[in-house]
Amino acid sequence: MAIKRVVLLVGGVGGAKLAYGLKELLRPDQLDVVVNTGDDFWLYGLRICPDLDTIVYTLSGLVDRVNGWGIMHDSMRTLQALQRFGEDTWFRLGDLDIATHLLRTEMLRNGQTLTQVIARLTTQLNIEHRVLPMTDHEVATLVDTVEHGQLGFQQYFVRHRWQPTVSAIHYSGAEQATLSPQVAEAIQTADAIIIGPSNPWLSVAPILAVNGMRGALLARDVPRVAVTPIIGGQAIKGPTAKIMHELNIPPSSEQVAAFYGDIINGFVYDQQDAAPSIAGLRVLSAQTLMRTDHDKIALAKTVLGWLEAWGSS
Amino acid sequence: MAIKRVVLLVGGVGGAKLAYGLKELLRPDQLDVVVNTGDDFWLYGLRICPDLDTIVYTLSGLVDRVNGWGIMHDSMRTLQALQRFGEDTWFRLGDLDIATHLLRTEMLRNGQTLTQVIARLTTQLNIEHRVLPMTDHEVATLVDTVEHGQLGFQQYFVRHRWQPTVSAIHYSGAEQATLSPQVAEAIQTADAIIIGPSNPWLSVAPILAVNGMRGALLARDVPRVAVTPIIGGQAIKGPTAKIMHELNIPPSSEQVAAFYGDIINGFVYDQQDAAPSIAGLRVLSAQTLMRTDHDKIALAKTVLGWLEAWGSS
Repeated sequence: MAIKRVVLLVGGVGGAKLAYGLKELLRPDQLDVVVNTGDDFWLYGLRICPDLDTIVYTLSGLVDRVNGWGIMHDSMRTLQALQRFGEDTWFRLGDLDIATHLLRTEMLRNGQTLTQVIARLTTQLNIEHRVLPMTDHEVATLVDTVEHGQLGFQQYFVRHRWQPTVSAIHYSGAEQATLSPQVAEAIQTADAIIIGPSNPWLSVAPILAVNGMRGALLARDVPRVAVTPIIGGQAIKGPTAKIMHELNIPPSSEQVAAFYGDIINGFVYDQQDAAPSIAGLRVLSAQTLMRTDHDKIALAKTVLGWLEAWGSS
Repeated sequence: MAIKRVVLLVGGVGGAKLAYGLKELLRPDQLDVVVNTGDDFWLYGLRICPDLDTIVYTLSGLVDRVNGWGIMHDSMRTLQALQRFGEDTWFRLGDLDIATHLLRTEMLRNGQTLTQVIARLTTQLNIEHRVLPMTDHEVATLVDTVEHGQLGFQQYFVRHRWQPTVSAIHYSGAEQATLSPQVAEAIQTADAIIIGPSNPWLSVAPILAVNGMRGALLARDVPRVAVTPIIGGQAIKGPTAKIMHELNIPPSSEQVAAFYGDIINGFVYDQQDAAPSIAGLRVLSAQTLMRTDHDKIALAKTVLGWLEAWGSS
């Protein structure tokens, strides 16, 4: 079966790599990237959407390729001036990046949706593929930690560099959030749904927690596959394995696949790992580590090839 | 009489020069600078206070000495990024300057007063003299123009570079605004009140329009003197003379003095002009043009000397 439309569900840096690979292979009308907004937060009256911005900056080519987030050659002049005022500037706000936050905040205050904001940003950065926030409502991922009690996501992730021990994670506002018409339509018309190699608990679970999201996905009798964020028991980047340990889940691809449960009917694990063994789950071995742009495109090609052969396998 | 406490009422650049001169001569407990906030506005969700910031940057030594406003060696990286998003960036937002706006906006959103915001900024910039917003309420100077109808102050002043013809000026919100306890106390305990060489209609009138301000000033039986912003029929800077023409007022010191009416009982006119002749108004001739720091201190010294001799003259 030829794949006509793919929906990719992702968080930030890891997911952005697969998004990049897919957009190199699929036409703009063939790919919608649905992005976690549970890590969004307010800082100095600005609405900051780290995962969305990482996807937008990556797809536009603006991204800082060393960090994998932020804008290349950005400066921190405003941040330095904030330090002069005695501020604890734990969140890196680049001067170029601030423009994105200012514009977004202004548009939101003027009553536009986050979906409209991102549509404008992508249009003006010449991104032709569609980037969609998981919802237009505010959802906040909150992390219960042993050392510091409950932390907002960025407090946990950036300020405390994901070092505190996680005891539970909440997706505040997800129950009251609804799918945007754009996300609902994208899922409803997709031939395949891919969950990127993002952190299942911090990046994908907030997406799945949006009221109506699970139902919308389960209603689609199409390939619904996840790409592992775990290789050899380790996270490629960030705290996925660490959090699994803390939640008493052995860090393995199989446990990630089990976490997604009936949301997925297919799973891509890394070639160096054993195949997850879950009844009814199709699996694919691939090189999932994406270091270069070539790796990103190669993994995207492998996954798309598998999806195209789905009906005949 | 020795002058113990002076209140200076000012707008931006012109007033900042006299503020600088006075702070070089008076101890911190001897000078309160009360600043126009009618030119404040919201941009991208930021609360921007151009006159206040000009005073703060001037007194801290951070000011861009070429422009007379903004921070020296500032950059416009955020503004350039906003242009990339198609924004009409008519208001110059420096990267260092944005830190001030972010911090202020955050503090205001957290329920702090503008007076508290400025107290924090001045403290952290090592300004010992007190800088006070004319009120903690929002007042907006609105300019009726022949060409463009009613314009917000910064639209008139910056976007249209004060070129439109002014037919009337309003101080929206001034009736509902009240004096802050700090401004009320400063006026109540001052030995002298000085109105700086700021634009009477655009910078000083908004201060005088704050509910209770005129009464508070008139209640004080002390020298209440204004320094002319007009020399030889011309404004030193900005649209004072132009606006006087447009409002059918001959541009002269005398007309400025007449505009202030019974608010003042003394007036400093420039040495190259004729003395204003208004019954009961004491006048002083001085070199009012302030090009150098020396000029600023010299004018401040002349005015203070006059005020000290007030009782005996």
